Amino acid sequence: MDLPDCNDFFENSQKPDNFDSVRCAVEDFVKKHIDQDRNIVLVTSGGTTVPLESQTVRFIDNFSIGTRGATSAEYFLSSNYAVIFLHRKGSLKPFQRHFQHINFLDILLASGDDVIVQGDQKSRVHSILSQYDHVKSSELLLLVEFTTLGEYLYNLRAAAQILRSAQKRAMLYLAAAVSDFYIPAGQLPKHKIQSSDGALTISLQLVPKMLRPLVSSWVPNAFVTSFKLETDPLLLVPKAKQALKTYKHQVVIGNLLERRKFEVVIVTQDVERWFHLTEVEQKTGVEIESRLIDILTEMHNQFMEPA
Amino acid sequence: MDLPDCNDFFENSQKPDNFDSVRCAVEDFVKKHIDQDRNIVLVTSGGTTVPLESQTVRFIDNFSIGTRGATSAEYFLSSNYAVIFLHRKGSLKPFQRHFQHINFLDILLASGDDVIVQGDQKSRVHSILSQYDHVKSSELLLLVEFTTLGEYLYNLRAAAQILRSAQKRAMLYLAAAVSDFYIPAGQLPKHKIQSSDGALTISLQLVPKMLRPLVSSWVPNAFVTSFKLETDPLLLVPKAKQALKTYKHQVVIGNLLERRKFEVVIVTQDVERWFHLTEVEQKTGVEIESRLIDILTEMHNQFMEPA
Repeated sequence: MDLPDCNDFFENSQKPDNFDSVRCAVEDFVKKHIDQDRNIVLVTSGGTTVPLESQTVRFIDNFSIGTRGATSAEYFLSSNYAVIFLHRKGSLKPFQRHFQHINFLDILLASGDDVIVQGDQKSRVHSILSQYDHVKSSELLLLVEFTTLGEYLYNLRAAAQILRSAQKRAMLYLAAAVSDFYIPAGQLPKHKIQSSDGALTISLQLVPKMLRPLVSSWVPNAFVTSFKLETDPLLLVPKAKQALKTYKHQVVIGNLLERRKFEVVIVTQDVERWFHLTEVEQKTGVEIESRLIDILTEMHNQFMEPA
Repeated sequence: MDLPDCNDFFENSQKPDNFDSVRCAVEDFVKKHIDQDRNIVLVTSGGTTVPLESQTVRFIDNFSIGTRGATSAEYFLSSNYAVIFLHRKGSLKPFQRHFQHINFLDILLASGDDVIVQGDQKSRVHSILSQYDHVKSSELLLLVEFTTLGEYLYNLRAAAQILRSAQKRAMLYLAAAVSDFYIPAGQLPKHKIQSSDGALTISLQLVPKMLRPLVSSWVPNAFVTSFKLETDPLLLVPKAKQALKTYKHQVVIGNLLERRKFEVVIVTQDVERWFHLTEVEQKTGVEIESRLIDILTEMHNQFMEPA
C-alpha cells in the first residue's frame, strides 16, 4: 500500500486564516521561555473535524471534549512548564474546565449593585482563580485553537518547527484525537448534500501520519509523547509498540475508551508500565493526569541530562 | 423510492437511559402551565450526532451550536411562553449564551474572601442574571438534553405527545439541525474503525421524516414551525414550500447558511415574507430572533382564535 504523503496534504489544504498571527505568537512565546531557561510543552487536545462539504454544514467528529489535554496542561503548569495549548475550539481549557458542568449564572448572586459568587462555591472559585491569575500574569500559557484537521496540522507543524530551537527542553504531548480519514478539498461537494437520494455513501482517504516528519524533521531533538486510544484491549499495547518502532519517538500512552479516566499504560521502547487509580482515589477526586505528568516530567529530565 | 418507516426507526434504536425521568419532568411541566393558561413552546436546538461505531469514538455531526434555538427561547420567555428547551448537550442555552465567548475566570476578581464580577462586566451580568433568576423562580424553562439522533427523536416524540393535551396552545419550533442520514444500530461496527486499510467507505441510510407523524398523529392541533437551512439560494423557498405541502404544518422558516444571522424568510401556505436586519441594527446588537418570535407569537394568537 502506498502511504499518503504529508507534503501532498499541505499542498492541497488551505492555510488557516489566522496562521501568520498564530505563528508570531508561538515564536514570541517560545523565545521568551527559552530565554528564561524554562521547559516548554506543546499539548494538543480535543478532536479534529473532517468537513463533508466545502461550505461546511456536516462533518465527521469524534467524542473527545479535551479532558485529558486540559487536565494535563494544568499539571504541566504546576511543574513549571510553559504550555502551548493547541486545542479544539470550544473544548475544555485548563482552569475553565472546572466550571464546564456548572451554569455560571447558578453560582452568582446579585448583591446590591455587585454580583458575587455564592457562598458554597466561593472557596473553590477563589482557589482556581488564584492559580489562573498566576499563570496569566506569568504568561505561562498560550492558547491556540483549531477546528478542522487542516487547521490542526498546519498549526502543529508550525509550532513543532518553532520548538526546534528549544532543543531537548521541548516536549510534545500529542493528546488530540486526530481524524484518521478525510476527504481531500478537491473532492468535496460545494453545497449541502441533498437527502433525496435515499442513501449516502461517503468515501474517505487515509490521513498521512504526521508523527513521521514531526520526529524525523520538524522537531528532531524534542521529547515526544503520543497517545493511542482503543476500544479493543487486545490491540492496545501491540499498536503502541508498533507506533514507537515506526516513528522512533520516546513514549506512547495507551488507554482504553471505557477505562481511560482511571487507567493508562506508559509504553517506551523498553518497558510497559500500567498504572491506575484506586476506587478511593477516584472518589476523592485524584486525577490520573497528576501521576502521568509526574512520571513524564521525570522522564523528560532524564532525557535532558547529558549522556 | 420506499420511504423509511418511523416505527422501524424507534424499534431499532435504543431508548435514552434517562427517558422515563425526562418524560415525567415534561408531563409535570406541561400540566402546570396548562393549569396556568400559559402557551407552551417546544424549542429544539443544536445538532444531532450520528454514531459511526457502537462504542462511539467517531460520529457525523453538523456545525450548529444552537444560536438560533437558544436566542429564540429567550424571546419566547419574554413573550410569557413556557419553554421546553430540547437541546444538544453542550450547545448554547438561553441566558448562558451571552457568556459563551467569555472566559468566566477573566471577569472575576478576588476581593478579600469574596469573588466578585469585575467592574466593566458587572452591569451586563447583573441584568442577565435578573432575567435568569425570574425565569428560574417562575419555573418557565425546562431543559432537556440530547446528543445522538436517537436520543433527540425519542425525546421529541415523547414531548410532542405530551403537548397534545395543550391543544392549540402548544407551539413546536423545530430549530434543531437533525441528521438526514444515519447508520442503523445493527449495522454499526463494535470497535473503533481501524485505519490500516488505506480508505474508508461509509454507507448511510435516510432518516425517516418525523415531521409527518408529528403533525398527523403525535400533536395534531399544535402550531408547528420547522426550519430549512440551505447553502444554495435557488433551493431555499421551493424546498420550504414542498415541506409545507408534504407535512401540512403551519410555517417553514428558511435561511441561508451565510446570511442566517440577519436574513430569514417565513413561508406559509399563502405567503413568503422575507425580513432582514439593517446594518445599523446588526451593529447595535439587534437579534433577528426578536422579530421572528414577535411574528410567530402573533400568528400563533390568530391560530388559537375560535374560527
